[in-house]
Amino acid sequence: MPVVDPGKTPLKTGSIYPEPYASMMAGRSSLRLGEAGGLTQFGVNLVTLEPGALSSLRHWHLHEDEFVMVTAGECTLVQDAGETVMRPGDCAAFPAGHPDGHHFVNRSAVSARFLVVGTRAPCEVATYSDVDLKVEIGLGSARFTYKDGTDWSGPR
Amino acid sequence: MPVVDPGKTPLKTGSIYPEPYASMMAGRSSLRLGEAGGLTQFGVNLVTLEPGALSSLRHWHLHEDEFVMVTAGECTLVQDAGETVMRPGDCAAFPAGHPDGHHFVNRSAVSARFLVVGTRAPCEVATYSDVDLKVEIGLGSARFTYKDGTDWSGPR
Repeated sequence: MPVVDPGKTPLKTGSIYPEPYASMMAGRSSLRLGEAGGLTQFGVNLVTLEPGALSSLRHWHLHEDEFVMVTAGECTLVQDAGETVMRPGDCAAFPAGHPDGHHFVNRSAVSARFLVVGTRAPCEVATYSDVDLKVEIGLGSARFTYKDGTDWSGPR
Repeated sequence: MPVVDPGKTPLKTGSIYPEPYASMMAGRSSLRLGEAGGLTQFGVNLVTLEPGALSSLRHWHLHEDEFVMVTAGECTLVQDAGETVMRPGDCAAFPAGHPDGHHFVNRSAVSARFLVVGTRAPCEVATYSDVDLKVEIGLGSARFTYKDGTDWSGPR
């Protein structure tokens, strides 16, 4: 049956970021709805942000389109140009290759949720706007580097 | 700005189906949110079904994954195995190549809405479960055939 039961979908917490960035993702969790439904071409996650939590470091994708719809509470979208408060039903789209980093912050006092869809490209590069960090993802592994491409070995 | 305003997104009605199937899609309309946001790798549409309306002929995709989340009202999912009533927050996933046709019917007395995401493959074949019809899509055109691959020229 193709109906995906969020109550039976494993909840993912934690982060693949190196420290100190991984700890900054406390209060974020996500249900991997697309995977639970057997999809492989794009990911669909229902992300919960507790008060104060971040969706990710602010970033942009080189090869993958991304789409977000807020489903509960308030999420503040942060980009180069500033902040936009988004509420249930509000949507945002981030075409691949546009170098304007984004993330969502829950600045409210209650939980917020959004649905996020992202292409699964065979290889991907995400660049983090506010720190000297980049990640190359492919062949099942992730390599973190500085923005100059050298191996990452700590904040600088 | 990546925020997509549903109020400013063109509303699509009508159907590419040949008659008599196009007329069966009365009461269905969709906001092309992904296109409005500049996305090309997958489509994201917010579909409204008036009471009695169908989302499509019952079909399955050969090359494209599909994902649905109901956002308002009740949508009845119809598949080979029967019917499932879906309500806001309920999700369904349809992996490419699984030959179990699906569509949604609004059997309620009020409007219903769902968000649907589908990969944009370079070419696609959709097969319609309940009628002798198939469509091949690619290079900007759509070719309707019977299931044996011959050109469609009317219901049989």
